[in-house]
Amino acid sequence: MSTGLDRLSETLLMGPGPSCVPPAVYQALARPTIGHLDPRFLDIMAEVQHLLRQIMGTGNRLTLPISGTGSAGMETCFVNLVEPGDPVLILVNGVFGQRMTDVATRLRADVDTLEFPWGKPVVPDTVHQQLARKSYRLVAVVHAETSTGVCSPVAEIGGLVRQTEALYLVDTVTSLGGMPVAMDDWGCDVMYSGTQKCLSCPPGLSPVSFSERAVAKLTSRGTKVPNWYLDLTMIIKYWEGATRVYHHTAPINMIYGIWQTLQCIVAEGLENVFSRHRSAHERLVTGLADLGLDMLVDRDFRLPMLNAVNIPAGVDEAQVRKRLLANHDIEIGAGLGPLAGKVWRIGLMGHTARSHNVARLLAALRTELALPASK
Amino acid sequence: MSTGLDRLSETLLMGPGPSCVPPAVYQALARPTIGHLDPRFLDIMAEVQHLLRQIMGTGNRLTLPISGTGSAGMETCFVNLVEPGDPVLILVNGVFGQRMTDVATRLRADVDTLEFPWGKPVVPDTVHQQLARKSYRLVAVVHAETSTGVCSPVAEIGGLVRQTEALYLVDTVTSLGGMPVAMDDWGCDVMYSGTQKCLSCPPGLSPVSFSERAVAKLTSRGTKVPNWYLDLTMIIKYWEGATRVYHHTAPINMIYGIWQTLQCIVAEGLENVFSRHRSAHERLVTGLADLGLDMLVDRDFRLPMLNAVNIPAGVDEAQVRKRLLANHDIEIGAGLGPLAGKVWRIGLMGHTARSHNVARLLAALRTELALPASK
Repeated sequence: MSTGLDRLSETLLMGPGPSCVPPAVYQALARPTIGHLDPRFLDIMAEVQHLLRQIMGTGNRLTLPISGTGSAGMETCFVNLVEPGDPVLILVNGVFGQRMTDVATRLRADVDTLEFPWGKPVVPDTVHQQLARKSYRLVAVVHAETSTGVCSPVAEIGGLVRQTEALYLVDTVTSLGGMPVAMDDWGCDVMYSGTQKCLSCPPGLSPVSFSERAVAKLTSRGTKVPNWYLDLTMIIKYWEGATRVYHHTAPINMIYGIWQTLQCIVAEGLENVFSRHRSAHERLVTGLADLGLDMLVDRDFRLPMLNAVNIPAGVDEAQVRKRLLANHDIEIGAGLGPLAGKVWRIGLMGHTARSHNVARLLAALRTELALPASK
Repeated sequence: MSTGLDRLSETLLMGPGPSCVPPAVYQALARPTIGHLDPRFLDIMAEVQHLLRQIMGTGNRLTLPISGTGSAGMETCFVNLVEPGDPVLILVNGVFGQRMTDVATRLRADVDTLEFPWGKPVVPDTVHQQLARKSYRLVAVVHAETSTGVCSPVAEIGGLVRQTEALYLVDTVTSLGGMPVAMDDWGCDVMYSGTQKCLSCPPGLSPVSFSERAVAKLTSRGTKVPNWYLDLTMIIKYWEGATRVYHHTAPINMIYGIWQTLQCIVAEGLENVFSRHRSAHERLVTGLADLGLDMLVDRDFRLPMLNAVNIPAGVDEAQVRKRLLANHDIEIGAGLGPLAGKVWRIGLMGHTARSHNVARLLAALRTELALPASK
């Protein structure tokens, strides 16, 4: 029987995620499935929680991977903490800020947004003025906007939100594991991320963490969480305590994967991992400049792991992406929303973020843009 | 670095799920991750849809795996089809009927339930009388109640629901891939299942299917689906059509897993698979009787893949389960709700459903119950 598994050749994943997966993580995914209440699995869950706290920079007890991809993590944070009519402020400078707005609006929150240009960071002064105007229950921002490659000053914004009664929510889907994330130091109450970016695990889980203040809001809700699958009041009874109450069957093998990848990151050392991301990014920016390509985002606000590159005039951008994949086994990403057709998004995430991968991409780009060979 | 992967020895999974996973599926999980918009991945998605339609017994175009475990599938069906105030009838004879009631109530539906004793099937006559009393938008039932091991007459109930305007929803989490499921023949409009039961893939995906009538209800909603992550109006734009609109990053490697396991099932032949489940079940019931153990459910309503066994007086049921796992690498399940402490749940699901596995369990049970060796 031909299963078609031969179609799945190793591809250099340099898009906005998924990223390349290290061999040890593939091996972990293929380890024997055991039961979700097996004592050995409960030990693994505890280790995953411990490792996540280290990487997220938090001591929060309620720290665990949600059984869905990054957007399920976003949904989890909002649906557990927002009740109808709650005033919520969302800081928008790309697709994922927009998505948070959509999620919160569907939950019938009283949603205000502050909009910033795509390709620019959120401006703390503007946030400060808005916080002086109105009281919010929740303020939400994206640390690393995957749609533009911009880093927003989440620590500074956290200082402002901390002066109010609002809970502070930060999306670290793209930043976690690739640059410093310091949940507690930022004054952040709620965080979600994903596995398929700098954590270098296939997509399927979303780490979330809630501070004690966030847990207090959760447990004092006036209404049941309107989403059974993502109701943390029930999920924590499975993840915590002596009596493990079955909620839904945990995605066992995916949890092996995140467990392994978190171990790899901690073993390499967070500072080494971040430095590897920065070096690969610098090498990429220099190499692109040699090819005559420039970056969308100003140097000060650039993410190391997501690089938005302006597409030169006259280039059929979709054809270049198609040829990179077909001829070189390299995937890069297209622009989203107003940046569609204007930028490529080049990911240097997790296991992908290595100089030799950057060199391979630059050589392939040179060929496909039909530029003369490098001196 | 010790990763602790050695803790994960092969275990004979005879609980209520997860079930044993065939080697080919483990191998599929470990194949190289590719992008969620890679043309090779789009082909795999189409093949998964095609295979799911065969196994679910439907021609429904909208047939795909949701990126979450079985309960996410339940949530998907209700959140997409139920609007506040919609009259919904739920037929309850165990935990999963109760769970559907909770899910629908959180969505502010006008929920009525018909309750049947745990360990007994839903009675069509009772349903018929209720349908004559009130008009419903949706009627929901569990085909194979995992909490009790009971099979309900879903085809007969479908005939009754079809005489009304209601959509008909059937949970096949435990039955799919282990006994005949005939969505279209049953007059079923909405179905969800899970991967970790008779499909023998690790937990993490939930196949769902919607009939044209269900899609018509979905697309004529007066309100947005109040759950961004599970909003099928957006998810289908990624799964269908020439332009694939990114919604969330699909759980790539889990989809390799379901793709492989569906291929295995179709290659073995559905009739052969069902017959293997029935034989293992018959062997188990006979062997349990030899040990002096009897079944909770009357013969006519027993599921082949989930066997609720009455616990003999004087036996410490938790100790027996613990010893089966520690001394024999065999997992069986505890009772839930009113059946906690009263039954064991022995799963014969998918790859687990083989005579030699039944023999291994019976021998281990004989030892742990300290019965004399078999003649």
